[in-house]
Amino acid sequence: MRNSPRIMKHLTAEDLLATLRWRYATKQFDATRKIPADVWDALEESLVLTPSSFGLQPWKFLVIRDPAVRARLQSESWNQPQTTEASHFVVLTARTDVTPSDINAWINRMAEAQGKSPDELAPLKGMIAGFAETMSHEARHAWNMRQVYIALGQLMTAAATLGIDTCPMEGISSAAYDRILGLENSGYATAVACALGYRAEGDKYAATPKARFERKAVVAYV
Amino acid sequence: MRNSPRIMKHLTAEDLLATLRWRYATKQFDATRKIPADVWDALEESLVLTPSSFGLQPWKFLVIRDPAVRARLQSESWNQPQTTEASHFVVLTARTDVTPSDINAWINRMAEAQGKSPDELAPLKGMIAGFAETMSHEARHAWNMRQVYIALGQLMTAAATLGIDTCPMEGISSAAYDRILGLENSGYATAVACALGYRAEGDKYAATPKARFERKAVVAYV
Repeated sequence: MRNSPRIMKHLTAEDLLATLRWRYATKQFDATRKIPADVWDALEESLVLTPSSFGLQPWKFLVIRDPAVRARLQSESWNQPQTTEASHFVVLTARTDVTPSDINAWINRMAEAQGKSPDELAPLKGMIAGFAETMSHEARHAWNMRQVYIALGQLMTAAATLGIDTCPMEGISSAAYDRILGLENSGYATAVACALGYRAEGDKYAATPKARFERKAVVAYV
Repeated sequence: MRNSPRIMKHLTAEDLLATLRWRYATKQFDATRKIPADVWDALEESLVLTPSSFGLQPWKFLVIRDPAVRARLQSESWNQPQTTEASHFVVLTARTDVTPSDINAWINRMAEAQGKSPDELAPLKGMIAGFAETMSHEARHAWNMRQVYIALGQLMTAAATLGIDTCPMEGISSAAYDRILGLENSGYATAVACALGYRAEGDKYAATPKARFERKAVVAYV
């Protein structure tokens, strides 16, 4: 997993914009269409490759395959049908804290990947620990939640570049999700969910004009 | 800005993975290389197009072009040289609250885009307001911060698909940034920054093996 310097196929600026405009929060998925295994594998890998603060990766991604569990989650998601109709459904969970043990695990993994001894990474370890210690437990959880939203952003954008539709889902009962998924006291808690698959032909939202504030309202130059 | 149903050029799963592996947190940028105007325009538009909860877009993106301001920000960023050496530098700010006025602005904009009267969107407006009211002021700010991290994720991924390097920067003094950028009491606060441009040939981090936990440690199936 090197940061490959090799030439790769880029999108043009025009392709990128077409991709981002094609994307929308898909409400109605075609329940008969499944994401092919190799494409799904790339999307899982895009989750794994998500950048995070200090590289800590304070998350677990739960891919919900059991239809019965998906049905139970739907009833805790304002009954939104994407929960069960989309090809794939992922619950993105955040680590509820950043402990010395979390930091150790990451330092050890990084040392392994870089062929170093963990001792060589002691200065970095001290810096991460120092940073985490300035925060309350709640602030560390909130910090981790924000990292999970990088994963959500990368997942939706990556999916769009592959022609895969997504629907980010915040309107879920995180507490109920945690209960159904056995996350209580696990050190991880539901942050947000994402349905992935293919838009149904009749999804009226696909034809609704995309609405955003004008660029001048959200981008400023200093 | 329709959700275009037209056929567009997709990446293959392999291209996507090559892109995500090529990406790394660039520490040393080639200060002589500037992102071309059309490419930068697409990246700004990727910020504008970022999905957000209820579509509220609780953010402003500040593109810092003044070298003197970038130098001042660098001194509040652990002196990280990306702040001044990268082609472009963006400060992503979050709205510090979600008020009835914010919700009105969004409902009006959506009505305009969809050719409806704001009254037709009253049920949605009520739902958003009800959701926001369940939260404390601090929780609404935190909610907005998480949305900003979707923008960060989309920006980094979008940039990589165009062959543009990025460095997300959390190690910044948000309070000092707010002061330097005149954000105090503006209703917006610094969340995170991102440098964008081209890696310098000598950046040793480009050759450092990318480290991530194994997939089985972060992805689980239910």
